[in-house]
Amino acid sequence: MSADSARVEAAIEARREEVNDAIAETLPIKRPERLYEASRYLLDAGGKRLRPAMLLLAAEAVTETEPRAEDYRAFGPDELDVMAAAVSVEVIQSFTLIHDDIMDDDDLRRGVPSVHQEYDTETAILAGDTLYSKAFECMLETGAPADRSVRALDTLATTCTKICEGQALDVDFEGRDDVTTEEYLEMIEHKTAVLYAAAAAIPAILLGADEAVVDALRGYGLDVGRAFQIQDDLLDLTVPSETLGKTRGSDLVEGKRTIVTLHARERGVDVDALVDAGHPDDVTEADIEAAVERLESVGSIEYARGTARDLVDRGKERLDVLPESEARTTLAGIADYLVDRTY
Amino acid sequence: MSADSARVEAAIEARREEVNDAIAETLPIKRPERLYEASRYLLDAGGKRLRPAMLLLAAEAVTETEPRAEDYRAFGPDELDVMAAAVSVEVIQSFTLIHDDIMDDDDLRRGVPSVHQEYDTETAILAGDTLYSKAFECMLETGAPADRSVRALDTLATTCTKICEGQALDVDFEGRDDVTTEEYLEMIEHKTAVLYAAAAAIPAILLGADEAVVDALRGYGLDVGRAFQIQDDLLDLTVPSETLGKTRGSDLVEGKRTIVTLHARERGVDVDALVDAGHPDDVTEADIEAAVERLESVGSIEYARGTARDLVDRGKERLDVLPESEARTTLAGIADYLVDRTY
Repeated sequence: MSADSARVEAAIEARREEVNDAIAETLPIKRPERLYEASRYLLDAGGKRLRPAMLLLAAEAVTETEPRAEDYRAFGPDELDVMAAAVSVEVIQSFTLIHDDIMDDDDLRRGVPSVHQEYDTETAILAGDTLYSKAFECMLETGAPADRSVRALDTLATTCTKICEGQALDVDFEGRDDVTTEEYLEMIEHKTAVLYAAAAAIPAILLGADEAVVDALRGYGLDVGRAFQIQDDLLDLTVPSETLGKTRGSDLVEGKRTIVTLHARERGVDVDALVDAGHPDDVTEADIEAAVERLESVGSIEYARGTARDLVDRGKERLDVLPESEARTTLAGIADYLVDRTY
Repeated sequence: MSADSARVEAAIEARREEVNDAIAETLPIKRPERLYEASRYLLDAGGKRLRPAMLLLAAEAVTETEPRAEDYRAFGPDELDVMAAAVSVEVIQSFTLIHDDIMDDDDLRRGVPSVHQEYDTETAILAGDTLYSKAFECMLETGAPADRSVRALDTLATTCTKICEGQALDVDFEGRDDVTTEEYLEMIEHKTAVLYAAAAAIPAILLGADEAVVDALRGYGLDVGRAFQIQDDLLDLTVPSETLGKTRGSDLVEGKRTIVTLHARERGVDVDALVDAGHPDDVTEADIEAAVERLESVGSIEYARGTARDLVDRGKERLDVLPESEARTTLAGIADYLVDRTY
């Protein structure tokens, strides 16, 4: 790990405990207990808290505040509860993961059973629905002037709609052979990147920043969010199973569309024949290695790397409208970190 | 049907077409088409539009406006889009029904297949999630001053949380033998009545009515909403299957807790033995008739009727803080209608 990555990880880590405490305050286990336990289950199972950290850093960058010098519960001259907004974004992320795991019938998440496995599907649907409205309640508790709250709420609502659209596009793609890399980039913008955009832009909205700053942070989030998803696709192909925490090449075996395989298909590769998807248990590490070599030979791995790198560079450039600050440097570092990470 | 009931039905009917048009405008079928088709499916299958009608009537009652004299899209001196709020509430109702049908594995709704049957569970979860955020988007589009919008949004968010809690309590009750009638009333307040309360109170909030008016309308909604649910429980026992559109006594056969059976249990009746729940196909109309006679003999049917009637009377009284108007009279009429209805 580079020194820069270590600094970024330390910056996220430094805010994690506080975010975790705020989540516990926001979602106490109360009657009906089983519902709230299920709602907390995935949140308590871990997670980097990358989006809340991004939101808190953006708040600091917008106000040129020294890192962690201010109380996130009474932040800036208006003493806003930016932590409530940070929790809101993380709670939305958790709701989407719970419902996604039901839809994809995934049994594991963050090394523990998914919520519908640990509880049951009914409870998991309801836990996700509860987190959904709790996120809106949270976003209303920042103490920001009403006009800014309305804009933040609107951003949150349209973000959620886009996440649903992105998930629907992803499902739709599974049944299609003619998905283009452009369509894929649109899908991951909706499914993944818009929540990063919300995390980066909402503090600027709440703190009354200039439109140019709000737009820049939104654009930054959209760029780094897409880069993050592409890096996920690459890691699935290139990182050994032990490091990955799941089977290397699982996207290939499951026939999932990624920017790598879509690019290869556009170059004439029969991606469905790369591994024997009909017999996933028979697919060896050597089969995956051979498939990756084929994808490399037509430049698809390099294409994905280049696309992620371009997005990161553009995202970082957008931060130039902000005054120089340690928080701004860290936001730029997060962009690099998302594509430099190896797990 | 009484003359009063006919007048109430006509008042709801008079607003239905306009509500339906507004729903279609709010949720056009766009990319990804399958998602939006699934989101519209249940809304398009029908429904009385009772809650949106209540919201529009409350807006008229608050402003002493002649019935339907104003454009609901530019209502009152501030030209608010109260129709957007009405659609929001109906969209929330539709989202909860879609997810409830998955949870209860109900195959039919409004005479057509439920969304997860017509499409699939994944799409139904996602359609519900899409409607959820769309309802919030909608509620932000009334054009009300920001401070009122924030309050309306807060009411919507806390309402959704309570609906989830109510559904969780309902599921919890199925596994318990010691549920009290008080607990049941709390459950239906959360699961059913809070959305009526939101429908009645939100227009008062948006239009800047006095707190006393907001509180009165909220209380009215809570009272008539609970009465509505109790009447549903009674109809299930007392109305022939043909009129009901589902099998008479289905709650008994499914072992569902209702205020009738909970009261009977408190009077020492072994309600689980009233019909043979283990062999639902063998339960005859005569079995149901005998069960109902037993419930009548201990006063449980009368107790439920009296509870509903008391709630309706209290709900109507709350309207006294509003100036006299045709809309207020109709709101009072809706309260009576909900417990007088026979299907």
